[in-house]
Amino acid sequence: MKLATFKSADRDGSLVVVNRELTKAKAVPNIALTLQAALDNWSEVEPQLQQAYQTLNRDKCECIPFDSCLAAAPLPRAYQWLDGSAYLSHVERVRKARGADMPNRLFDDPLMYQGASDNMLGACDPIEAANEEWGIDFEAEVGVITDDVEYGVSIKDAAIHIKLILLVNDVSLRNLIPDELAKGFGFLQGKPASAFSPVAVTPDELGAAWEDSKLHLPLMVYWNERLFGNANAGADMQFSFARLIHHAAKSRKLATGTIIGSGTVSNYDLTRGYSCIVEKRVVEIIETGAAVTEFMRFGDKIQIEMLDGQGLSIFGAIEQEVSPCR
Amino acid sequence: MKLATFKSADRDGSLVVVNRELTKAKAVPNIALTLQAALDNWSEVEPQLQQAYQTLNRDKCECIPFDSCLAAAPLPRAYQWLDGSAYLSHVERVRKARGADMPNRLFDDPLMYQGASDNMLGACDPIEAANEEWGIDFEAEVGVITDDVEYGVSIKDAAIHIKLILLVNDVSLRNLIPDELAKGFGFLQGKPASAFSPVAVTPDELGAAWEDSKLHLPLMVYWNERLFGNANAGADMQFSFARLIHHAAKSRKLATGTIIGSGTVSNYDLTRGYSCIVEKRVVEIIETGAAVTEFMRFGDKIQIEMLDGQGLSIFGAIEQEVSPCR
Repeated sequence: MKLATFKSADRDGSLVVVNRELTKAKAVPNIALTLQAALDNWSEVEPQLQQAYQTLNRDKCECIPFDSCLAAAPLPRAYQWLDGSAYLSHVERVRKARGADMPNRLFDDPLMYQGASDNMLGACDPIEAANEEWGIDFEAEVGVITDDVEYGVSIKDAAIHIKLILLVNDVSLRNLIPDELAKGFGFLQGKPASAFSPVAVTPDELGAAWEDSKLHLPLMVYWNERLFGNANAGADMQFSFARLIHHAAKSRKLATGTIIGSGTVSNYDLTRGYSCIVEKRVVEIIETGAAVTEFMRFGDKIQIEMLDGQGLSIFGAIEQEVSPCR
Repeated sequence: MKLATFKSADRDGSLVVVNRELTKAKAVPNIALTLQAALDNWSEVEPQLQQAYQTLNRDKCECIPFDSCLAAAPLPRAYQWLDGSAYLSHVERVRKARGADMPNRLFDDPLMYQGASDNMLGACDPIEAANEEWGIDFEAEVGVITDDVEYGVSIKDAAIHIKLILLVNDVSLRNLIPDELAKGFGFLQGKPASAFSPVAVTPDELGAAWEDSKLHLPLMVYWNERLFGNANAGADMQFSFARLIHHAAKSRKLATGTIIGSGTVSNYDLTRGYSCIVEKRVVEIIETGAAVTEFMRFGDKIQIEMLDGQGLSIFGAIEQEVSPCR
């Protein structure tokens, strides 16, 4: 099943079911007005949404042509956004560039930060920044949305709480981050609003590509229309989404509608390119002693998308442009 | 005006207006069903709520006796919880105990972390922990709730976005924090669900005690029914709430319903006691070389309250007991 949230006068937008080919959409106000409302009562609502989805795929209907740019983030404001760092090739390179090794514990204990969830960007919303010198970067990721997760959930039980999967652009302001992290309290100003794919899908939609709470497909990243990365999101993912949920819920429960990100997708195989600029820069530092690639400028474009085995876009594309803050 | 959220079958509870003396409450479904719904449209809704409040204070009415333990957190789930660290006497003592000095930048650049907001505890909800050895601690704080804040708001303009004020217990698991902060990504497992006073109030309710976006009254903290601290929340607050909002909004807007905490209230005058256990412990380390006071145990109680000039409870009391996770 594929779901999206269309922008509307309401802050939470309007839930729509989208067909498999992403060509048409249908509001389902008799089932749920918003995605959060559906998640609040998921076990009851999901079968009804699945039925609407089957009908939409099969029949001609009075429906709206689907356009990614009509879409807000699936959850335009969410109660929780947690971002992991599950790809250790990314972590290892960033550390190596500053002369730090990889402590053993990082192979067992996931990095994760609590991010801002009050304003989530739609797939076509601009990346607004007040200052081009802040080091504007993208981070292409996979994310999941959970239902209610119990306090201290086991890894095994965590997997069943994954209700939806989507793509994320975790926008980062690299030049604000070093000072911020030096203060010791994590990210705040360095991690402004993230953007999400127009569509979120249920795990069954992914077939064999969804295995062990990992999504085994390449994540395509185009920067200014040139391929920048196509790392496989299933390869080199040290911590599965079930593992990340288990980590997040060690000392508290998680409310339905919690979004958990994988962290920047990255492979040890450098021919797969990069899912963020900073990783390319650190490889340049390791190889030549200096970073050459610059961060994003106003007018720069980023596209993030994932195709299935038939070349069909699964989630629709995140397609953003960097623009000065209005 | 005083507002609370009563627990109900709905995840967001039911908004009630509470009279000044905290003896009676009235639901206002014709105005707004929930506090978030009121905040979503605050400029239109606030005058109506104020009118209901005046009527409640003045008239006999069909209303419910107010009981703090009927109250959920004013926002039982919120889109954002940001906690500052505005009292530098607290920061200085903690640093001194580990032999670190106070860099000048900490006097100009607030510490602030992004906290979990998906499950906020009501004033009488237990502090549940899976393990008594995690170093369970309270942090008594003042907090504010904002409406929509524009990207890059100035300090001067930030003050007008403070719509409600409340008390916070920012529960902390001290023994999980050192390892977590050493990883560099801020708090996650060390900061489980926070609790909030039963009532949130508008700034006008505080009279002269609310000045320069600070609340100039003692915050009473009782641990197991013995006075543990009564620091004045207006004294030694290096960063006002307007300043904290300005800091949070440097690189993004903040959505209505954002809650911002002051950090542990603390005075340089040690006779005012402490608003968290760890600060007493670090003073013991500084004075005698070793911490004597232990963290909370199952069955321990914490009460946090603030009285006005007439000895009347402004926000009602946070009254929690530590209990093993159910």
